[in-house]
Amino acid sequence: MRGTVLYGPGDIRFEDRETPRIEQPTDAVIRISATCVCGSDLWPYRGLQPLNGPTPMGHEYCGVVEAIGSAVKSVKPGQFVIGSFATSDNVCPNCQYGYQSSCNQREFITRAQAPMLRVPLADGTLVPTPDMPSDDLVPSLLTTSDVLGTGWFAADAANVKPGSTVVVVGDGAVGLLGVLSARQMGAERIIAMSRHEQRQNLAREFGATDIVTERGDDGVKRIVDMTNGIGADSVLECVGTQQSMMQAIRCTRKGGYASFVGVPHGVELSGEESFFAHVHLHGGPAPVRRYLPKLIELVLDKKINPGQVFDLTLPLEKVAEGYKAMDERRAIKTLLRP
Amino acid sequence: MRGTVLYGPGDIRFEDRETPRIEQPTDAVIRISATCVCGSDLWPYRGLQPLNGPTPMGHEYCGVVEAIGSAVKSVKPGQFVIGSFATSDNVCPNCQYGYQSSCNQREFITRAQAPMLRVPLADGTLVPTPDMPSDDLVPSLLTTSDVLGTGWFAADAANVKPGSTVVVVGDGAVGLLGVLSARQMGAERIIAMSRHEQRQNLAREFGATDIVTERGDDGVKRIVDMTNGIGADSVLECVGTQQSMMQAIRCTRKGGYASFVGVPHGVELSGEESFFAHVHLHGGPAPVRRYLPKLIELVLDKKINPGQVFDLTLPLEKVAEGYKAMDERRAIKTLLRP
Repeated sequence: MRGTVLYGPGDIRFEDRETPRIEQPTDAVIRISATCVCGSDLWPYRGLQPLNGPTPMGHEYCGVVEAIGSAVKSVKPGQFVIGSFATSDNVCPNCQYGYQSSCNQREFITRAQAPMLRVPLADGTLVPTPDMPSDDLVPSLLTTSDVLGTGWFAADAANVKPGSTVVVVGDGAVGLLGVLSARQMGAERIIAMSRHEQRQNLAREFGATDIVTERGDDGVKRIVDMTNGIGADSVLECVGTQQSMMQAIRCTRKGGYASFVGVPHGVELSGEESFFAHVHLHGGPAPVRRYLPKLIELVLDKKINPGQVFDLTLPLEKVAEGYKAMDERRAIKTLLRP
Repeated sequence: MRGTVLYGPGDIRFEDRETPRIEQPTDAVIRISATCVCGSDLWPYRGLQPLNGPTPMGHEYCGVVEAIGSAVKSVKPGQFVIGSFATSDNVCPNCQYGYQSSCNQREFITRAQAPMLRVPLADGTLVPTPDMPSDDLVPSLLTTSDVLGTGWFAADAANVKPGSTVVVVGDGAVGLLGVLSARQMGAERIIAMSRHEQRQNLAREFGATDIVTERGDDGVKRIVDMTNGIGADSVLECVGTQQSMMQAIRCTRKGGYASFVGVPHGVELSGEESFFAHVHLHGGPAPVRRYLPKLIELVLDKKINPGQVFDLTLPLEKVAEGYKAMDERRAIKTLLRP
């Protein structure tokens, strides 16, 4: 088969690779129905994260089980499944506490931009749908694998509750689905920070009540002005830069909650500022496995349509163009179909 | 009157100062029954925090109301009162959310090591006791003004619940009262990190079930070994150094809670480590005013005896010796009586 490999900044190749097969009794191999490019894939693509040689890419996936190892019990060949970008045994103490993305046996998936994928710890990582879903639901189901699960975690970690005032920092697909998640959790007011018209429109469609175009200190000032002079109850940081992190913390009211789900790159927090900020801070790799059953159900019941974040669909072999379009912010998120 | 002034590292003087009087209609002036030296007073005393010239000291206090301004309604002359180290109007939005130590009108008290003290925003800052307390309760009542309130906030911010496994980093008076607080909140297991025998004994008296003497990476390893390999549910950081902060975060399980109440000095948190640590982080100046009514009640009902942290009592004019004894760790905490 052919799969996606990043050779260096801007250098994505779709090239011959070994077809995955069962290696451990706990593995499954799935035939990918859809995969996509993640905002976090852009860090190494842009040369902002070091590579150790050519690196197979892709960690968001759904598809049909092709084969299972001898120990796998919860999925079987022919089933449609979705899995987290982080594998989990779903039984270790960290998994039991709902932090499956810190499972004691965690591996990060990293070759999903391909027609076939080996998934370790299949029982604890994959969730099957009750039936074969119709093709139009596949994009939304795909989002539960990472980008929706991450937006959902951002809202959950920021303690979004019915009636909350919420700010979302970052208008990438995660931020936009953070808006959708906050709406599902009953937020009363959702302020999306974005200066990009198409993304503003999608934010509104997902439930944003206000748009703020200012950034940095100006953005903070606008948010404080809009929130009784104190800041928002819940702020979702969905980027991972120093500026966005400080913007998020400073938009949060005393005693409020700031979550951070964008993988931090070069971020340093001052202990003293964090102390006097008086906010609750929680983040990390989203424990997608915890949310998968609920999110899959919301999609299958057509309560949400998170697949709208895909504004570019390409055949898998055009993956390089998919990266380029996202890098240049011509596309919010690229869907890839084998 | 005479009051305490810090002139420079190690240079505490008890010298003539103007007797405080009502300046604003919202002020009260109280005659101090007892005051004390705080761990945070040691930062400037040790030259680890810059001074802008001679600085009046002291922010923990209780005593009898001597005079009130014309707008004060909730306390009256002759009443015994305790107040927070941070003043609050108790009506602004931050106060309403329970974060009175970030009140929009907050001032930090800083001349309590004296026989008389002016307290701004008396209505929102001071809490009277129902009757004049007996003298033996005064030390414990004094602790509610800061050191107990801060230990209580540490446990609350670290989400201590019935059945929790708790670690306390720091064996100063705040850490010891963090142990007491965690016990009151129903923690099942409380591990105090201390290598000082007298403090270990007091920690056990306050409810510690285990003592760990190792620090830094060795301390983290011990805690992880003692907690099913995953770390503790709740970790209270009661020091404020880089080492103690990292020790606290690394002792916390994924999805667990680390609080920090020691004023951070030179602490920097790596965004990336905070991300993969997967902990909840909350801290800041303790909103003592929120807890005062409950803590005063616990003391008056003799359910707790936090005054045990005072192992040195001096007449107020010997305040310099009180600082010295704490600096040299000969005393856990110095009580000063005018």
